[in-house]
Amino acid sequence: MIKPQDRLKDLLAEDMSAVNNIIATRMASENAPRIPEVTAHLVEAGGKRLRPMMTLAAARLCGYDGPYHIHLAATVEFIHTATLLHDDVVDESDKRRGRATANLLWDNSSSILVGDYLFSRSFQLMVETGNLRVLDILANASATIAEGEVLQLTVAQNIATTEEIYFKVIKGKTAALFAAATQVGGVIANASEADIQALHDYGDALGISFQIVDDLLDYSGVTKSLGKNVGDDFRERKLTLPVIKAIEKADPAELTFWKRTIEVGDQQDGDLEQAMALMEKHGAIEETREQAVLWAEKSKEAIRRLPQSELRDVLADLADFVVSRVV
Amino acid sequence: MIKPQDRLKDLLAEDMSAVNNIIATRMASENAPRIPEVTAHLVEAGGKRLRPMMTLAAARLCGYDGPYHIHLAATVEFIHTATLLHDDVVDESDKRRGRATANLLWDNSSSILVGDYLFSRSFQLMVETGNLRVLDILANASATIAEGEVLQLTVAQNIATTEEIYFKVIKGKTAALFAAATQVGGVIANASEADIQALHDYGDALGISFQIVDDLLDYSGVTKSLGKNVGDDFRERKLTLPVIKAIEKADPAELTFWKRTIEVGDQQDGDLEQAMALMEKHGAIEETREQAVLWAEKSKEAIRRLPQSELRDVLADLADFVVSRVV
Repeated sequence: MIKPQDRLKDLLAEDMSAVNNIIATRMASENAPRIPEVTAHLVEAGGKRLRPMMTLAAARLCGYDGPYHIHLAATVEFIHTATLLHDDVVDESDKRRGRATANLLWDNSSSILVGDYLFSRSFQLMVETGNLRVLDILANASATIAEGEVLQLTVAQNIATTEEIYFKVIKGKTAALFAAATQVGGVIANASEADIQALHDYGDALGISFQIVDDLLDYSGVTKSLGKNVGDDFRERKLTLPVIKAIEKADPAELTFWKRTIEVGDQQDGDLEQAMALMEKHGAIEETREQAVLWAEKSKEAIRRLPQSELRDVLADLADFVVSRVV
Repeated sequence: MIKPQDRLKDLLAEDMSAVNNIIATRMASENAPRIPEVTAHLVEAGGKRLRPMMTLAAARLCGYDGPYHIHLAATVEFIHTATLLHDDVVDESDKRRGRATANLLWDNSSSILVGDYLFSRSFQLMVETGNLRVLDILANASATIAEGEVLQLTVAQNIATTEEIYFKVIKGKTAALFAAATQVGGVIANASEADIQALHDYGDALGISFQIVDDLLDYSGVTKSLGKNVGDDFRERKLTLPVIKAIEKADPAELTFWKRTIEVGDQQDGDLEQAMALMEKHGAIEETREQAVLWAEKSKEAIRRLPQSELRDVLADLADFVVSRVV
């Protein structure tokens, strides 16, 4: 079976080629050659381009035949790339998409400033659409992303973090951009308010599902398929859903373990394996998986009201595919 | 004599009070309380609010009586604050406006992410004006700022840096926002193209003058009046105008000194004093000062075409005041 994102790539091949062109043109900088170097390292590293494809698909689904879904798709990819550059500095990551991160290859300063540049470029692209509503949606999404990241930062290492806070964090840092990506596709196509809302809800739920799966893979995947290191979240003492669920059910001895490894940060050989064993023991892995499936179902449900088409079916299959990595 | 920025403050008191209100409201975040903490630390540290006042003055000069100059002034201050937060991480600064920097009080991650948040918030404010041209101008300015910063980064520690490159850097990192700040004031007021251009040119030249003075003070000011440490640029091995001019005229022994301290970065006690002595010896300080005066004159020249008014006179005096710190 062909993966849904590959079918999406086929269906949107012409549009994606235009998006890639605009990305290549706009990441250039006459004055500062380091900008395209750093950007190209990340952009050409074979990201799945999932977010821009979602914008294109949403616009096409709503019958759009103008030129601006291309700008919006490139906008979404630039915002995503900018946040990745900043995230890798914040997380002190050394690996992304299977390659050394930009902060490792160049330095933190380059990652911060090139991220700022791409973010500005993304707004220039939006301005070119002449559509104030998409500017509004994407400016809001950008603020929500930053808010989610700051919230994540301030609750890191705090084992009192609840599932409610976890969902606030991932709605910000991941779902906001997925939701905006599909929503602006509907807006630029001048779709009905109900269809625009449906596209927003699809992206929102898909983003949540996507992030839960990502967090789950950090404790159960293999390094190669992730393109990053298994256990990174544990080492960075992040309170992701499987950890929160395991802590909820911890007995006093286990609580001591979590305090030492996550709160105090005193981690030793074998601690990651112990953490994974505790998650299995309390069914935290299984419950997290069920949450991912639930949100994937919600996303499929959301776009059911849109007219049936191959694109709509592929978007629904995409939701199934996201969770297939962990079921 | 009352300082021009204080007269500006008096003339724009009512508007600035509205700007401060909007800044306080928009820097709030329900989900991430660290955001207003970090922002307030910087915003309330007694910055001169020069840039937002320039937007207000430009709009008023052109007879504007709508509400959106307030949004634009707050936008400009948010963009400025975001770049300060990121700059202090890039420069590893510990002092700003006489206080410990946010990256020191919290951490680099908070400075990066809160900067991103403020940047997004600034775009939300622009969207509210409903004016696509101001969005275009400020998105371009933001991209140019980041470009200037990246260029500065890549030429740091390179003693082959020319005056031409120096001017490219400061046109980006400083003048672009000054120019955009005054320009959007004219745009929102629906001024004539010639007046909009004049306001742009005023801000551009004032920004260049301002930055030259700032770079000069780093080698001749006293720590207290700067709110940062004298010699910071030397320690960070930045190629600012006085250094570039001194290197242009260096004899072989002096070149060895510059290579060791700026390129290699092997700095010892007394090197800062030696650097300052070489700048004096070659007239680099004096020539840099003349450049600052020249750009201040250009800025005054630019707004001469606007109708005479107290506000216009104060803007002209501001240019004189900027350079008065070094003459």
